Amino acid sequence: MRMVDLIVKKQNGKELTTEEIQFFVKGYTDGSIPDYQASALAMAIYFQDMTDQERADLTMAMVNSGETIDLSAIEGIKVDKHSTGGVGDTTTLVLAPLVAALGVPVAKMSGRGLGHTGGTIDKLEAIEGFHVELSKDEFIKLVNRDKVAVIGQSGNLTPADKKLYALRDVTGTVNSIPLIASSIMSKKIAAGADAIVFDVKTGAGAFMKTDEDAVNLAKAMVRIGNNVGRQTMAVISDMSQPLGFAIGNALEVQEAIDTLRGEGPEDLNELVLTLGSQMVVLAKKAETLEEARTKLQEVMKNGKALEKFKEFLSNQGGDASVVDDPSKLPQAAYKIDVPAKEAGVVSEIVADEIGVAAMLLGAGRATKEDEIDLAVGIMLRKKVGDKVEKGEPLVTLYANRENVDDVTSKVYDNIRISEKAEAPKLIHTLITE
Amino acid sequence: MRMVDLIVKKQNGKELTTEEIQFFVKGYTDGSIPDYQASALAMAIYFQDMTDQERADLTMAMVNSGETIDLSAIEGIKVDKHSTGGVGDTTTLVLAPLVAALGVPVAKMSGRGLGHTGGTIDKLEAIEGFHVELSKDEFIKLVNRDKVAVIGQSGNLTPADKKLYALRDVTGTVNSIPLIASSIMSKKIAAGADAIVFDVKTGAGAFMKTDEDAVNLAKAMVRIGNNVGRQTMAVISDMSQPLGFAIGNALEVQEAIDTLRGEGPEDLNELVLTLGSQMVVLAKKAETLEEARTKLQEVMKNGKALEKFKEFLSNQGGDASVVDDPSKLPQAAYKIDVPAKEAGVVSEIVADEIGVAAMLLGAGRATKEDEIDLAVGIMLRKKVGDKVEKGEPLVTLYANRENVDDVTSKVYDNIRISEKAEAPKLIHTLITE
Repeated sequence: MRMVDLIVKKQNGKELTTEEIQFFVKGYTDGSIPDYQASALAMAIYFQDMTDQERADLTMAMVNSGETIDLSAIEGIKVDKHSTGGVGDTTTLVLAPLVAALGVPVAKMSGRGLGHTGGTIDKLEAIEGFHVELSKDEFIKLVNRDKVAVIGQSGNLTPADKKLYALRDVTGTVNSIPLIASSIMSKKIAAGADAIVFDVKTGAGAFMKTDEDAVNLAKAMVRIGNNVGRQTMAVISDMSQPLGFAIGNALEVQEAIDTLRGEGPEDLNELVLTLGSQMVVLAKKAETLEEARTKLQEVMKNGKALEKFKEFLSNQGGDASVVDDPSKLPQAAYKIDVPAKEAGVVSEIVADEIGVAAMLLGAGRATKEDEIDLAVGIMLRKKVGDKVEKGEPLVTLYANRENVDDVTSKVYDNIRISEKAEAPKLIHTLITE
Repeated sequence: MRMVDLIVKKQNGKELTTEEIQFFVKGYTDGSIPDYQASALAMAIYFQDMTDQERADLTMAMVNSGETIDLSAIEGIKVDKHSTGGVGDTTTLVLAPLVAALGVPVAKMSGRGLGHTGGTIDKLEAIEGFHVELSKDEFIKLVNRDKVAVIGQSGNLTPADKKLYALRDVTGTVNSIPLIASSIMSKKIAAGADAIVFDVKTGAGAFMKTDEDAVNLAKAMVRIGNNVGRQTMAVISDMSQPLGFAIGNALEVQEAIDTLRGEGPEDLNELVLTLGSQMVVLAKKAETLEEARTKLQEVMKNGKALEKFKEFLSNQGGDASVVDDPSKLPQAAYKIDVPAKEAGVVSEIVADEIGVAAMLLGAGRATKEDEIDLAVGIMLRKKVGDKVEKGEPLVTLYANRENVDDVTSKVYDNIRISEKAEAPKLIHTLITE
């Protein structure tokens, strides 16, 4: 088998066989196939697409290119949730204890934030003592006993995907649905998921700028999942403005607690219930999405979700008393309102730029080596569609420095006020098969 | 400027600027742009094509990537002829003295043969004493005085093209009209041509398998030529069977002599007159193709073409007396007829495979290091459309070994006899603007 023949085959729009895709992924991982052939194939795929079978084969070949996490010792259907990345996205923090309270096993492998996007582990570390340094045995034991635990990413998972992604980044082949879908799916499957729920963000702050692209990606992932024996569902949700009000680690923990109590921001609450319902159904803890939603609302109301959160925090060394006493969370030295310069209706809050503004305060990392300040961040005081009077706060900055002119100016640049505007629809589409 | 942005721009079907193409060619030549980005761009070009301006820019950027041959000291319009490669293609040997006899300066840089294709220098070396080791000054002096000289390829011409071609060969991006056309054009221009005539072969034995592809390539080259100030014309000619009768170095020299005398095979004679007419018109030695053809036929008839050939051979150390005494050419020890196994009409002579058969006898090189035997080769005794009786020779092998079963069997495999067949049309299309 020669790689150049595979490239030409795909270039001519023909379907690669399972063996051919395995040959490519194996050869590319071990270095026997050079970058220049892999980039040519990626470009050919960009133009000629891949069939369902090819996508499934590519996904599984990448899964098998490295280590995989074996969660078979955990009872029940392990449902993972994955977001394509957003700003102020507190859903994982809420969903993990929420669905665990219904008996859905949540064995979550999480990462840290980079750029304008936050990371779940950073957020949890705002709670004193909380850590993710669990042995694999402890991790499995905790999930079996209490249905929820979080560990950091470890092991040499999907090396083929890592190598190919880095190459795609510099060869103009990032933006290919089959390549994006199999990349994401391979990582989830290698991490041990039996079933997966995707939150595909759409809008200015998201990787997928249009609804059409988001739907295509979501459908592609759901099809791959079904073709490789991992039931998959997806939600297309709005990321034209940040989710909820809080952007920043301790601030988002507080918001998660409010939401688990049933008192969260409307949009965050709705997204959590939508994603959570799919997780509960996939874990076979409810027959229908409606039944699942009712059960989720029950555990919010009766306090079981919050109890589960406390238990989860304690299990991993965290001080669970923050749930009842938020003052124990890291506090910023300065709370600075940014007042509206004119009256009107908020018509745009550019999500990723507001994420960058929070990063400037220290809430996020510009590079992997940066230290972050868990206390700081931004609380939105208005969302798109809200009326605002002149002088009324648009946002409140939580800062550990006095001069925040850089942040204030970024906020003004990225929140627009018009005569009229409507709140964007949060849930665009549900993709369940 | 970032290479990845250029790749994405082309991927999206947009036109690259002159500066962008120069950036790519310069960076790829000096190694600052890696192979994996060049191959991604080549694949994007395969799918999105290039505009006329881009093709002209790419051609000139490749010309300027290395040394160029300065022929400005030669008076008159230097017209080069280039064939896309065939079997038994003796046209250069005939054309060089033929058009020189009309005062067209022929400053020819030629190569050696590889695989099933012969090389002009190999053929000329079948004449005792002939050599191409001329200094640049001698070369220019000869062309100015006698209008024709041949030297070997030298200098670091179009290194960008060499590097890119090698990469395209292993990344499935050879078959792209804009890339083929600018590759060929850059080499001709770097070698100092003021005007160029192309013989684009089509058919089983050629790189371009279909007429449509051949016409597209020819038109692309003619447009590039006109856009970069080098008048260019092209002929699409048949290569479904070998040209003329002779395949092999000394055999082709003999055939060239016959043709210069006006007694050559019909197809070779016709192709020489067609290509020669374009060369004469481009060199402004005739107003029309018809006028040029008449003049060429005149110098064939009145012996001036043959005199020019003798002069050319003597100038470069060759024994010109071979022209009148062909027995002075290298002679093979054995002449072996391969008889038809059945009666009928010759319906197919697979050009490249017959070229390989001649190579097996020693007429060509399998690898660059091989020595060739100038005396051996194959003379076709029948061409497509010719009637043949059982036992009549299809070809005669000129061999220096007694056992030629391997060659005989290859000949039988690649000459088909049917009930009826017609001679293929030799000249498919003329492209003059």
